[in-house]
Amino acid sequence: MNLERAASFIQSHQSFYLAAHQSPDGDTLGSCLALRTALTALGKEAEVVCPDRVPANLGFLEGAAAVTGTEGITLPKEAVIYVDCADHKRTGALQSVLETAPYQFCIDHHGTNPRASKDGDWVEEAGATGELILRLLHALSVPVTHGIAVALYTAIATDTGNFAYSNTTPDSLRAAAELLSYGIDLPELNRILFREMTLPKAKLTAYVLTEMELSASGRLNLVAIPQSVLDAIGATKEDCEGLIDSLRDVDTVEAACVLRESGGVVRVSMRSKRTCDVAAIAKRFGGGGHVRAAGCTLELPLEEATRIMREALTEALA
Amino acid sequence: MNLERAASFIQSHQSFYLAAHQSPDGDTLGSCLALRTALTALGKEAEVVCPDRVPANLGFLEGAAAVTGTEGITLPKEAVIYVDCADHKRTGALQSVLETAPYQFCIDHHGTNPRASKDGDWVEEAGATGELILRLLHALSVPVTHGIAVALYTAIATDTGNFAYSNTTPDSLRAAAELLSYGIDLPELNRILFREMTLPKAKLTAYVLTEMELSASGRLNLVAIPQSVLDAIGATKEDCEGLIDSLRDVDTVEAACVLRESGGVVRVSMRSKRTCDVAAIAKRFGGGGHVRAAGCTLELPLEEATRIMREALTEALA
Repeated sequence: MNLERAASFIQSHQSFYLAAHQSPDGDTLGSCLALRTALTALGKEAEVVCPDRVPANLGFLEGAAAVTGTEGITLPKEAVIYVDCADHKRTGALQSVLETAPYQFCIDHHGTNPRASKDGDWVEEAGATGELILRLLHALSVPVTHGIAVALYTAIATDTGNFAYSNTTPDSLRAAAELLSYGIDLPELNRILFREMTLPKAKLTAYVLTEMELSASGRLNLVAIPQSVLDAIGATKEDCEGLIDSLRDVDTVEAACVLRESGGVVRVSMRSKRTCDVAAIAKRFGGGGHVRAAGCTLELPLEEATRIMREALTEALA
Repeated sequence: MNLERAASFIQSHQSFYLAAHQSPDGDTLGSCLALRTALTALGKEAEVVCPDRVPANLGFLEGAAAVTGTEGITLPKEAVIYVDCADHKRTGALQSVLETAPYQFCIDHHGTNPRASKDGDWVEEAGATGELILRLLHALSVPVTHGIAVALYTAIATDTGNFAYSNTTPDSLRAAAELLSYGIDLPELNRILFREMTLPKAKLTAYVLTEMELSASGRLNLVAIPQSVLDAIGATKEDCEGLIDSLRDVDTVEAACVLRESGGVVRVSMRSKRTCDVAAIAKRFGGGGHVRAAGCTLELPLEEATRIMREALTEALA
């Protein structure tokens, strides 16, 4: 069984890179950091490496300050474990360094992972990689400390959208139940992970809810954000995340679209609820995604891009 | 044990009122409706009664259309089960009718319920009454249908704020895991329960995020909503719920305050994150609540009320 192979891989080696993927999220970081604490408890050397910086709202995770990028990395190590990386390329600038480690292993929950069929790895579909790590710690007989519990709860809660996405399984909730029993401050953790926003994010939310244009009998909700507005508010790329959800949440809406002017191009995000295939629309404009969440980039002035996307979406909703 | 007494009470009687409390929420309605389906499966007669109307966003629950108020109630019934009613008074206008039933029982999860020490009832602390109902159905050997699973998941998810409030326990998550295994469409259910908003609610959110005033080094976030704004937007009382959470969610904020002009008085809601005792402030103005969530009503013009609350909160944050 793959779980046993993962445990045996860890038992067979002494020093590890634990590799988080680029644009790191709660699952890759929570899983890496929990595993780091566990390996340290087993008397092994473990370093969490990530090609990008830890997002500010995940800085509270135990060991987050010790995550290294291409700069601080300690060379060499005997083994590398890719954690939650659907593809090794997702380790970005670290890939060439990591490939020098003689022993390689992958723990991931993405069914699309090309290593899913490889004997040497552990790829298994789950709500989050954090669920696999919890099972691994049990197999290794490592006690779940408070820090590990918070890290793995963060992994599972973030990757399942706080138990709202379709990847949530009964096992995700059972793992969360076990982790909660180790004494997590749930209201505080939820606030950090899902609620807290910067002032620019609040202002940007106010902007899109004020400027949004409902059409197609309320079924289409669209907003265009000029670069000048983003600059005036002082909004970062992170502040723009989730804006489209607010547009889609209006009860009459089937499809939502946010057009964001960015460095001379227009980034288009689309979401739908039940019927509209936004991936098909994105594809027509050289983009891609899923049926309910897709996007594309248009090299057009914002007004022109807005007109084109409104037309395409209105047609799709007709 | 109380669970066994509840099962035995149901087995001993044939016709039931299942009483939901006034201002019904997901827990009281989900629990009542799940229990109704179960009693019907056992060949018994069960009618869910509630002094107030079912909120629009809970209308999807199986049997919601058959919930009766003082008007349509079918007389007489042998027994009444008060479900999630922290006090029998919470059945409002139905109380006198319900008291005529010869056999009375109470199933509730509120530790403050005055019947907690009574032998004849089942009051046990839990994340939601829905958790108790699930255990009861198992004790009665009633199969959990899809409709029951959705109703009880709704009960638990809403009363725990989607597993975010401090009342959430490992048992809440374990019950949710079991219910999910019966095939709930989680993304759709979550959208209905926690995300979807009316257009007036979206406009009102835009208003408070635009007009909010940060002070005390960003630690106080306050907004005043004139009656004229509510009228222009066409907002209902329900649309005003949760607005204060958006104010508190700004990362620098410790205390949030919403003042809402309503029929000649000003309704004041306050929330805090970690240190500010808003209950103490509410009490000074004749209101009440908890340390982190409290409110009061001021018979003053909106501007005057705003000035007074800003002063009181600024002082408390100093």
